[in-house]
Amino acid sequence: MSAPSTSSAAHPRLSLNQATIKYADLDQALRAVADGGYEAIGLWREPVQAVGIEESARRLADSGLRLSTYCRGGFFTVPEGPARRAAIDDNRRGIEETATLAAAGAPGSRAVFVLVAGGIPAGSTDLVGARAQVADALAELAPEAQAAGVTLAIEPLHPMYASDRAVVSTLKQALDLAAPFDPAVVGATVDTFHIWWDPEVLPQIARAGAEGRIATYQVCDWNTPLPADVLLSRHEPGDGVIDFASLTGAVGATGYTGDIEVEIFNQELWDAPFADVVARTAAAFEAAVVPHLAASVPLSVVE
Amino acid sequence: MSAPSTSSAAHPRLSLNQATIKYADLDQALRAVADGGYEAIGLWREPVQAVGIEESARRLADSGLRLSTYCRGGFFTVPEGPARRAAIDDNRRGIEETATLAAAGAPGSRAVFVLVAGGIPAGSTDLVGARAQVADALAELAPEAQAAGVTLAIEPLHPMYASDRAVVSTLKQALDLAAPFDPAVVGATVDTFHIWWDPEVLPQIARAGAEGRIATYQVCDWNTPLPADVLLSRHEPGDGVIDFASLTGAVGATGYTGDIEVEIFNQELWDAPFADVVARTAAAFEAAVVPHLAASVPLSVVE
Repeated sequence: MSAPSTSSAAHPRLSLNQATIKYADLDQALRAVADGGYEAIGLWREPVQAVGIEESARRLADSGLRLSTYCRGGFFTVPEGPARRAAIDDNRRGIEETATLAAAGAPGSRAVFVLVAGGIPAGSTDLVGARAQVADALAELAPEAQAAGVTLAIEPLHPMYASDRAVVSTLKQALDLAAPFDPAVVGATVDTFHIWWDPEVLPQIARAGAEGRIATYQVCDWNTPLPADVLLSRHEPGDGVIDFASLTGAVGATGYTGDIEVEIFNQELWDAPFADVVARTAAAFEAAVVPHLAASVPLSVVE
Repeated sequence: MSAPSTSSAAHPRLSLNQATIKYADLDQALRAVADGGYEAIGLWREPVQAVGIEESARRLADSGLRLSTYCRGGFFTVPEGPARRAAIDDNRRGIEETATLAAAGAPGSRAVFVLVAGGIPAGSTDLVGARAQVADALAELAPEAQAAGVTLAIEPLHPMYASDRAVVSTLKQALDLAAPFDPAVVGATVDTFHIWWDPEVLPQIARAGAEGRIATYQVCDWNTPLPADVLLSRHEPGDGVIDFASLTGAVGATGYTGDIEVEIFNQELWDAPFADVVARTAAAFEAAVVPHLAASVPLSVVE
């Protein structure tokens, strides 16, 4: 896209999730992020698979970037049978891909595989049953994740996606699902966009930290009116109503010092040049999130 | 709209919330609902105020219908100053209107004034502060509601409205806000559309019942894709993913035997003849909700 630049470094904890520049292929994404002065990237399966996992690992290694997460698996809420077996098998491959990429990334890479639960099956009203299928899938996949050294990061999604995308809607629910497992094997994705509204969010972040289950911290903003496709309703940090001071402070207070991903699905950003989005995101992160990282010195747990 | 009919009676606990036939004026709404064989109606302030409160009370009395709720007040999340004073004063008038209408309605009418909290003020990210403003407003209005014999029904709204419409997003939060007050004065609106996704919904319904705070039970359905205006994303019971068996059973198990309102904001319904919507709603209620009313015999609290 752009000639290699000597742009000033982005914040060392900032990672760009590849979905923010959705139309970039793997090479374009790695180059844009590295050229933007970032140290880390969160990759998505489709562009990785387009190149092949071994070749992707080589290119990630060549980029010098850390891997912050690999997105994404899950979609477990299908009745037992061939479709569910295919979903489980696909998650097995995702676990292996995560391990391969994390091993190839720069030091500090994390083998975190983000999981979206899946929605209510077509024609069903059995929300409780769908949630049980998520628990069952975790039990089936956890040994494989453990063997591969991969952390499964259950992502609670905003309740507006509860019917068609994720029957896991709150951080509490994700942590309850993770509870039976080793925190190194099953953790949670803490994404401001999905959980900012939750009256329980601060104590649940504290709990996630105390339990060692903050597998990744992702930031983007919420604003209204929502676009016609509510999947694309995310904004750069600072362009909405989310209080990054309290949320980032709460995450920091747990002692979490890992990468912080910006993951934005937004048509306007997708249509912009990759380098512009990379630069704009680094600036937004600097203005809206970095001032609140001071609290990342481990403090007492948030009340 | 239609000539008076001798349509078969709707279920005796079914009430039509006037918003479901939004374009009906007060007379049209009262007539359509009475002609449809309903015993109860939930009224909205705008069509009442268009006629005047005393005249509205007379017309409600003439209709022979019970009042199930009066919608709506709230919108408390404005900084202290003239705008907030105006909001509080408007709620005072709403309380008086509720008492007047409930006294005029058929026996069994309930003086329930539904409150929508309000969103985050423009330019603010202070969600916690906005919630505190709701608590302060309740403390200010509760004595007036008590004096008027009116129940304030805090309505948790789906979290997709948390930024621009209601900073109260869960039934637990509504009950926590209501906790300092007499349950006859401050209760909660239990609306399936807003809370069906909540992992805590069944125990919180049980808690609401045990605390005597189910001020009204409202039913409509959730489905996707959401329309461009997410305010209009409600459907007739049975046309979506909501499990009315578990929710209606949980409400019934608390001993709640009051009216059940159908409140739907849906452009297609708004564009249909009032009598058709009234009949369609009665049929949907009969098919999707009535079979689960058997559990309305008080049982042990839902686990």
